[in-house]
Amino acid sequence: MRTTAKPQKKYVKDNSINTQNLTFKAIDRRSALKKLSSLATAATLPVFGQAKDVESQKALSNVAPNQRLRKIATEEAFNIPEIAEAIANVVRKGGTNLDLLLLKQIYDAPQTVTPVSPSPGSAVTDRDRAALSLLPKLLDLNEIRRADMDINGVDIHVLSLAMPGVQIFERTKAMELARLSNNRLAEAVRRYPKRFAGLATFAPQDPNTAAKEMERAINELKLNGFIVNSHTDNAYLDDPRFWPILEAAEALGAPLYIHPRAPSDGMAAPFRDYRLEGAVWGYGLETSTHILRLIFSGVLDRFPKLQIVIGHMGEALPFWLWRLDFMGAPGARAGRKNTLKPSEYFQRNITITTSGVEDPMALRYCIDKIGVDRIMWAIDYPFQPTEPAVAFIESAPLSETERAKIAYGNAERIFKIKSVE
Amino acid sequence: MRTTAKPQKKYVKDNSINTQNLTFKAIDRRSALKKLSSLATAATLPVFGQAKDVESQKALSNVAPNQRLRKIATEEAFNIPEIAEAIANVVRKGGTNLDLLLLKQIYDAPQTVTPVSPSPGSAVTDRDRAALSLLPKLLDLNEIRRADMDINGVDIHVLSLAMPGVQIFERTKAMELARLSNNRLAEAVRRYPKRFAGLATFAPQDPNTAAKEMERAINELKLNGFIVNSHTDNAYLDDPRFWPILEAAEALGAPLYIHPRAPSDGMAAPFRDYRLEGAVWGYGLETSTHILRLIFSGVLDRFPKLQIVIGHMGEALPFWLWRLDFMGAPGARAGRKNTLKPSEYFQRNITITTSGVEDPMALRYCIDKIGVDRIMWAIDYPFQPTEPAVAFIESAPLSETERAKIAYGNAERIFKIKSVE
Repeated sequence: MRTTAKPQKKYVKDNSINTQNLTFKAIDRRSALKKLSSLATAATLPVFGQAKDVESQKALSNVAPNQRLRKIATEEAFNIPEIAEAIANVVRKGGTNLDLLLLKQIYDAPQTVTPVSPSPGSAVTDRDRAALSLLPKLLDLNEIRRADMDINGVDIHVLSLAMPGVQIFERTKAMELARLSNNRLAEAVRRYPKRFAGLATFAPQDPNTAAKEMERAINELKLNGFIVNSHTDNAYLDDPRFWPILEAAEALGAPLYIHPRAPSDGMAAPFRDYRLEGAVWGYGLETSTHILRLIFSGVLDRFPKLQIVIGHMGEALPFWLWRLDFMGAPGARAGRKNTLKPSEYFQRNITITTSGVEDPMALRYCIDKIGVDRIMWAIDYPFQPTEPAVAFIESAPLSETERAKIAYGNAERIFKIKSVE
Repeated sequence: MRTTAKPQKKYVKDNSINTQNLTFKAIDRRSALKKLSSLATAATLPVFGQAKDVESQKALSNVAPNQRLRKIATEEAFNIPEIAEAIANVVRKGGTNLDLLLLKQIYDAPQTVTPVSPSPGSAVTDRDRAALSLLPKLLDLNEIRRADMDINGVDIHVLSLAMPGVQIFERTKAMELARLSNNRLAEAVRRYPKRFAGLATFAPQDPNTAAKEMERAINELKLNGFIVNSHTDNAYLDDPRFWPILEAAEALGAPLYIHPRAPSDGMAAPFRDYRLEGAVWGYGLETSTHILRLIFSGVLDRFPKLQIVIGHMGEALPFWLWRLDFMGAPGARAGRKNTLKPSEYFQRNITITTSGVEDPMALRYCIDKIGVDRIMWAIDYPFQPTEPAVAFIESAPLSETERAKIAYGNAERIFKIKSVE
């Protein structure tokens, strides 16, 4: 893959690239699994319940296809012990980064506090306490997770390294841990090819190496896309230094999930009180602002085929689209470079997921506003309970065509996940 | 009014206040106008078209009541020459405040540029050019404005001093200009009592004096509420030093419109590119963050009767309500003091307007989410063209009851504006 292997210094888009050749080829994951079985047994991850795998896959197929809804959850977090430890070290050093508040609760909780495990499906009302029970779930790519999936009838987790990925680490360490994480993720997908898909991580701290890792993740590891957690060292992806990353995602034909993290230092001040920095508020504003920087910088004109995914019902951007179009039409202000209206980028470049917004009214609004083909279901495991997320997609007032597209059809298309026969 | 005249040092809520006594009394504005006619003729404002006033009021009454929709526009900006000049002086000094970009275009435009006046009702596509033509419209409380209202069948402008009010001035100057602005506003309302209502400004820089001015604005000037433009010197109204202002608004039974301004310095960094600071994006995030600070600080529990108005279809907060309730329920995180769910504050304390979001789909969502009694129509004159705002409220798919409430009924109730006989 020429452009990412040898990123062009001046970031001039090479339109001669035949993106068709770079398209992910659907593989028979079972045969891949056979080939890689020796690797799998040598994995450093504890392999629980290998025997239960077959049972687990049966549990789903036992339900008659016409009686159950296939469900692909598209924003499901995991972590690996090495990164969990590295995060704990960053937390202990301290600093101004607003993500540290939640990271401390998850990765460096005081030993004196007894973690609580809320009953499955229960609404989480005390999120401080609940955070203490997240780590085992994040680290598990096997029994705990598949049990949660089976009980709730979830077919596939599209897995991604938990926020903030490797973006808070020093450059070399970030690159190493990204590679390690992607290897572990690929192993999990190979082990349970009908239950897991995966979004690769990368270290934006070194964009050229990131582009190479992205190529490896798609072409060698056969993963399904990428995830990045908004800003890196307080910089956004419209910054030209990050363009090799966008170029690689576009050329590889693989979507880039822009996941939240707490607001960057330069916008953090009003979020430092009342724990406003996290999922309750700061996440959405950080991420939606990131998307608008990509739109108004003209970056989506430079990489017109780039596919971006954003969670949390589009971080409210669909609700703002009328005003964004009115105020942000091409040429409305000097200093903006967008050649299309914001809503047109939504039609072309952006897909949203329902993670963390189980609101039928907001879902209906989004279907009517951006179209049903641009919406995928997600749970946000383990940060959100699975049961209500499943109840939401199974009971929301949708046509069966809409429900099928949102629950799994769009995810199969966008992440190139094999359909059931 | 004891509490605002002598603000309690420790901000202990005095529940003995009989807010009933402080209720605005509907007055016969015509008789008030007669009494004040000598004052009106002595006004420093140019008095255009005094003779046309009667015509103007006839223009509306000529249309049969059952054929036209009464329309009260609730976020309509004006300015006075003294403040326009003071803003220009601040602009010339320069600084990091992100509002200066737009303020320069409106109040300190280069003399070499020829202002353009877009044809009435036309969509504004080049907002840089359009900004140059705003000042005459802002400064007019007479012919230009009433002509725009008459042509489009707008009954009443609820007037408010344009963003950023007096909040960018030095404390003493801010207090003086607030008083002057309120006097001019009251004059305009007395002159055209059936066409104008008014929201008073105040200088949050001196909260105790602000509270006194708020009392004067309601009890003496007979204005209809207050407006504040989000942060003041980068601080938000949840800061205890501002509580005399909230206490006064609550005790006076008059709503506080929290209007946007560009993000405060502490959150400004990602908004400094691509003109993201303004109406296209930064305004909404600054203001919605302000509202959530009021909610999660517990300030709305301390002032439970405080009525807040926010524009721009609720700055997208209605879209976020499911997630806000899930993540921000009482007790979800240490450091938050809200005793209710965010949606419950919306039911009790918050009303939204449609300013700048003429999207029937977003309106329908908001009606279904927060209730039709909590939504008022607005134009955002002269920043938004009147004609499409009118077309929006006249043609949006609403029941006639809904349309009447949004177009004028809720505004009459909330701003205590006299109904038509």
